[in-house]
Amino acid sequence: MAESTNMRLRLPLLCIILEVILIILFGALVEYNDDTHAKLWNANKSHSATRDDYENEFYYRYPSFQDVHVMIFVGFGFLMTFLQRYGFSSVGFNFLIAAFSLQWATLMQGFFHGMHHGKIHVGVTSMINADFCTGSVLISFGAVLGKTSPVQLLVMAIFEVTLFAVNEFILLSMLGANDAGGSMTIHTFGAYFGLMVTRVLYRPNLDKSKHRNSSVYHSDLFAMIGTIYLWMFWPSFNSAITNYGDPQHRTALNTYYSLAACTLATFAFSALVNPEGKLDMVHIQNAALAGGVAVGTAGEMMLTPFGSMIVGFLAGTISVLGYKYLTPVLESKLKIQDTCGIHNLHGMPGVLGAVVGAVTSALASPGVYGDGLQRVFADAETGKWNPQSRGGFQAISLAVTLGMALFGGLVTGFILKLPIYGAPPDTHCFEDGLYWEGFLLSQALPRGPLHSKEYNKSTDSIL
Amino acid sequence: MAESTNMRLRLPLLCIILEVILIILFGALVEYNDDTHAKLWNANKSHSATRDDYENEFYYRYPSFQDVHVMIFVGFGFLMTFLQRYGFSSVGFNFLIAAFSLQWATLMQGFFHGMHHGKIHVGVTSMINADFCTGSVLISFGAVLGKTSPVQLLVMAIFEVTLFAVNEFILLSMLGANDAGGSMTIHTFGAYFGLMVTRVLYRPNLDKSKHRNSSVYHSDLFAMIGTIYLWMFWPSFNSAITNYGDPQHRTALNTYYSLAACTLATFAFSALVNPEGKLDMVHIQNAALAGGVAVGTAGEMMLTPFGSMIVGFLAGTISVLGYKYLTPVLESKLKIQDTCGIHNLHGMPGVLGAVVGAVTSALASPGVYGDGLQRVFADAETGKWNPQSRGGFQAISLAVTLGMALFGGLVTGFILKLPIYGAPPDTHCFEDGLYWEGFLLSQALPRGPLHSKEYNKSTDSIL
Amino acid sequence: MAESTNMRLRLPLLCIILEVILIILFGALVEYNDDTHAKLWNANKSHSATRDDYENEFYYRYPSFQDVHVMIFVGFGFLMTFLQRYGFSSVGFNFLIAAFSLQWATLMQGFFHGMHHGKIHVGVTSMINADFCTGSVLISFGAVLGKTSPVQLLVMAIFEVTLFAVNEFILLSMLGANDAGGSMTIHTFGAYFGLMVTRVLYRPNLDKSKHRNSSVYHSDLFAMIGTIYLWMFWPSFNSAITNYGDPQHRTALNTYYSLAACTLATFAFSALVNPEGKLDMVHIQNAALAGGVAVGTAGEMMLTPFGSMIVGFLAGTISVLGYKYLTPVLESKLKIQDTCGIHNLHGMPGVLGAVVGAVTSALASPGVYGDGLQRVFADAETGKWNPQSRGGFQAISLAVTLGMALFGGLVTGFILKLPIYGAPPDTHCFEDGLYWEGFLLSQALPRGPLHSKEYNKSTDSIL
Repeated sequence: MAESTNMRLRLPLLCIILEVILIILFGALVEYNDDTHAKLWNANKSHSATRDDYENEFYYRYPSFQDVHVMIFVGFGFLMTFLQRYGFSSVGFNFLIAAFSLQWATLMQGFFHGMHHGKIHVGVTSMINADFCTGSVLISFGAVLGKTSPVQLLVMAIFEVTLFAVNEFILLSMLGANDAGGSMTIHTFGAYFGLMVTRVLYRPNLDKSKHRNSSVYHSDLFAMIGTIYLWMFWPSFNSAITNYGDPQHRTALNTYYSLAACTLATFAFSALVNPEGKLDMVHIQNAALAGGVAVGTAGEMMLTPFGSMIVGFLAGTISVLGYKYLTPVLESKLKIQDTCGIHNLHGMPGVLGAVVGAVTSALASPGVYGDGLQRVFADAETGKWNPQSRGGFQAISLAVTLGMALFGGLVTGFILKLPIYGAPPDTHCFEDGLYWEGFLLSQALPRGPLHSKEYNKSTDSIL
Repeated sequence: MAESTNMRLRLPLLCIILEVILIILFGALVEYNDDTHAKLWNANKSHSATRDDYENEFYYRYPSFQDVHVMIFVGFGFLMTFLQRYGFSSVGFNFLIAAFSLQWATLMQGFFHGMHHGKIHVGVTSMINADFCTGSVLISFGAVLGKTSPVQLLVMAIFEVTLFAVNEFILLSMLGANDAGGSMTIHTFGAYFGLMVTRVLYRPNLDKSKHRNSSVYHSDLFAMIGTIYLWMFWPSFNSAITNYGDPQHRTALNTYYSLAACTLATFAFSALVNPEGKLDMVHIQNAALAGGVAVGTAGEMMLTPFGSMIVGFLAGTISVLGYKYLTPVLESKLKIQDTCGIHNLHGMPGVLGAVVGAVTSALASPGVYGDGLQRVFADAETGKWNPQSRGGFQAISLAVTLGMALFGGLVTGFILKLPIYGAPPDTHCFEDGLYWEGFLLSQALPRGPLHSKEYNKSTDSIL
Repeated sequence: MAESTNMRLRLPLLCIILEVILIILFGALVEYNDDTHAKLWNANKSHSATRDDYENEFYYRYPSFQDVHVMIFVGFGFLMTFLQRYGFSSVGFNFLIAAFSLQWATLMQGFFHGMHHGKIHVGVTSMINADFCTGSVLISFGAVLGKTSPVQLLVMAIFEVTLFAVNEFILLSMLGANDAGGSMTIHTFGAYFGLMVTRVLYRPNLDKSKHRNSSVYHSDLFAMIGTIYLWMFWPSFNSAITNYGDPQHRTALNTYYSLAACTLATFAFSALVNPEGKLDMVHIQNAALAGGVAVGTAGEMMLTPFGSMIVGFLAGTISVLGYKYLTPVLESKLKIQDTCGIHNLHGMPGVLGAVVGAVTSALASPGVYGDGLQRVFADAETGKWNPQSRGGFQAISLAVTLGMALFGGLVTGFILKLPIYGAPPDTHCFEDGLYWEGFLLSQALPRGPLHSKEYNKSTDSIL
């Protein structure tokens, strides 16, 4: 049984095959866009007699891109290091599947809505979109954290990225939905996809690893690095691909206030639901971020700081209550083992964000937006624009996203259930030693209890 | 006595009431400014026939804002995790009071100098200013770290933010002072306010918690994350709200050199004052930052790299000497228990920065600044401008700031002394277990000594 | 013998003398450039009738500068905290020598290629270049990590910065080479300089400190903070000083794809070379970054994402294989004790990057680059431009760099061998307690074995 988790052939083979396929497809399909191509930049002056350097999209988007990049790699990576014994895997597998997903997402998103004469054009906007899609995979990773091998995670990413691109295409290109910060495309999709996967992968005997499914003092501090970076850069995340000028500026502002209000709600309800009035690190690490999720759709609209704060406050509240009361029920009744509680951080706040987006769309009017209407609602200049029907399309978008996520997660879950990926045994979930060098593991791996000497890596006398 | 620190009603009630008040006031008073409003951006073309997207203040200020934001939440938050047993509270309470303060500061600063037809206009500049005001509260937090409940900290923030806005209004609007990086408004104010608060809250029996008032190996490394982020982004902090163009550029450059020189001074004097020539982590974590504080006023002026380096070197020197020789005296003679030594990092370097700013202002001349004079000194174009009187007003500004801070700290201190906030007992200062879930605390909380088993959270066998 | 490591006079004296010399030279030689000077900005309108604020180089370069700055201070600093017992020194000495080097580099680089009428002009571009030069010193620091005193490191920096500036002058100004991301000037130079220094400082009895030359669980997580920041911001590093517009944009894009492909190669080969198929943290922390190094020269060229991914994949592969098979041989056969394995992360990938740059230069053509040719190849407009000879000059540049680095490292190594710097004894390498306050060290310092009680700083009962 011990060799079943051996990655020696599985992981290298999969990584190399995937990367070779990626390289071949990039060679065949991917080209620099006008702003990154030495010849086309400034040669292609169709819409302007002179293009100055500062008009290159790099200067509008790259600072936002870097903030998003930090959220993906540091934010998600370290947020999941809260487990006492899974820090290497949290930040390491996060790194691996993100590096794969951003390449695969470039192809899938380009294929569905970035083709120009049979070629996929890339630049900083495609980099941001690829990182966004990657974020969705990392959300799902949070649900199965500690219970999957890196091979399983890569396979999950292959399917999830593909479906993400399809769903994004339906929402943004077919339904004309607004979703700049991804309340639907990223958070709702990633959450319900991941929850369905973990449902299918249900482990009745997971309590054999229960003692490792918790934090220690310093692992919680590492996780706070992730939390704080996600929190700080969420305004950049939501505004990264809005139109230039007031929409980008306004989105950052709305997100900033939503998060601030969410944080106060999180501390309030965390203390309130505890019999001794003590704060729970799980809530602070996660629920305080729900305010960013919940303004992912409406953030670019004229939501006002007032509206943003109400949304943020609600998001923090339902997220804490979800951790306290809903997660245990999901596990015991619905057999959904959600390691990071993504339902509370991304699922419910994502749905809330979609609803807020639909309502705010339905309330939009030229009187409020003036000339700015078409900078937010792309079809506003066509004359066919109607706020109520826009709101309706936003609501349909949420339904489509939920359907795609649940269906995709179901299929992917069954694929991941095949006994060929080296998944950890029930006794050794949440355990870095399975996949990382330098830990002692007892030979009778799936049977015997954990011995303290297994942990030679950290019982080193000086730590 | 044990229930006196129970936060179950106090903290939720205060957070919810505060947030509801904030939301109501935001609803009544706060509006998008011209650069964030869909209708006003590009409708309001009074000063320019066409406004291109790159003219939106977002593109000039947002990268600086994000750096400032990192300093507030990661910088301050992690700098204070040096305590062995107070990491959750350091980074968690920092998070809470910052999230509250930035909302409250938006209102207070807007009320005093951002009203337009009865409304407060917000955008990226107000976000930076709100973060700046928050920084001041976090400086004061450093003085009382480990000795206050989160409720006390929120109450302190209510008063400190209000007085900060008044002082800022007097300095910038009435006295016409320059203080882009806040040597006076942020550092001097925050430091002396906090020192006065901790003086009033003096605990004669604090040595009952002495064993927890120190660092362990990894807590010092977490603190270095805070230090390094503060150090790296200080050029962004000082330049974040200067005028566009050369002032912003020059401020970043001056701060960069001041900090570099300060760092060498810090290492030099840290080794020199130790009998064995060993470096002290406390100095490296704190004094190396004094160079940023000390060019907070003069950084935008023609201080030259040469001048900046001299200022930085001096700041590092007095800061280390302060930690070594002054802090013990302040505690034993003046009964000022300054947990983080904010007097050495923000107090003295802030005053130095104010003096350097006054001198540099007094030496300003059109010969040196040319057309750039009015980009630095707002009233230079009025014809009434006179460098010597400018220098005088800068000096008066320092005196006003010291007065406001000491008076405000005194009043606030007495308010915080009321026995209604759940402050920790002398025996359990610097202790996360009081306010955070997951720690065992002996029942005889204020009486018995600490037992090692109280620390179940971190003596977990695998850490 | 114990006093030989006492820094009380050596370190303060050296720091103060160096800083005083720096301040005097800055006073005599350094001036604000046109974009940072209050008078010259907008007075100097030779090339343009009106200069708008957004044309200030600050807005093009400063976000990149901050990313580079993070790589230098957090990236390099924390990457080296992987040692269980050398975290203070890793991040602390990194801080010290970086703060010195950036000042010294400003002078040396200014002296060789930034003089204007006898003055060195500074601004954000000189700040980036100074940080780049500092990066080279920190690479060399990785080779001697744990085996040198801070005084030795400062002396090394004095010489290395000087030679770096000479080599950079030969490459960029005399040979007209392209090397925007520094595959040659930074990585190859820093690596072979450091390897030669550590060769000269060879310690036959270093295995007396072997037990400290390894990681523990949380030190590896701290190191991952460094890794991830380096990885994320490498696109900013390589693009920081390219020309504006498409070259800067394209460089960031190419680096992004190279790193992603490199990461998959790293995970693949790390598992493949391990008998149990387990991943090695050393590989993930280091080899995953080799893709950034290897596109440091060609990144600004029309390498295409396809080409970038191939280069990144190769870089990751050779880097992992280097750690596994070459490092032990270098130590046993060539007596090169390379603590961080800089040969695998910077040496070989740097040479690969130089070769890729030479080939890509030789393949450049107006057909591919169009008008953009001269934005990449400075001499393309002179008419004398010839891609093959450009490729040749790139190859010569690599040879010059290797020669300068090895010769410079040899001389510097012998200077550092003088017994006057307080270097650690063989028994106490990789040990923070020698230079940092708060650790118990046995009296019989160079003789006895380490006792567990020496580590009072971290065996504190609560960690």
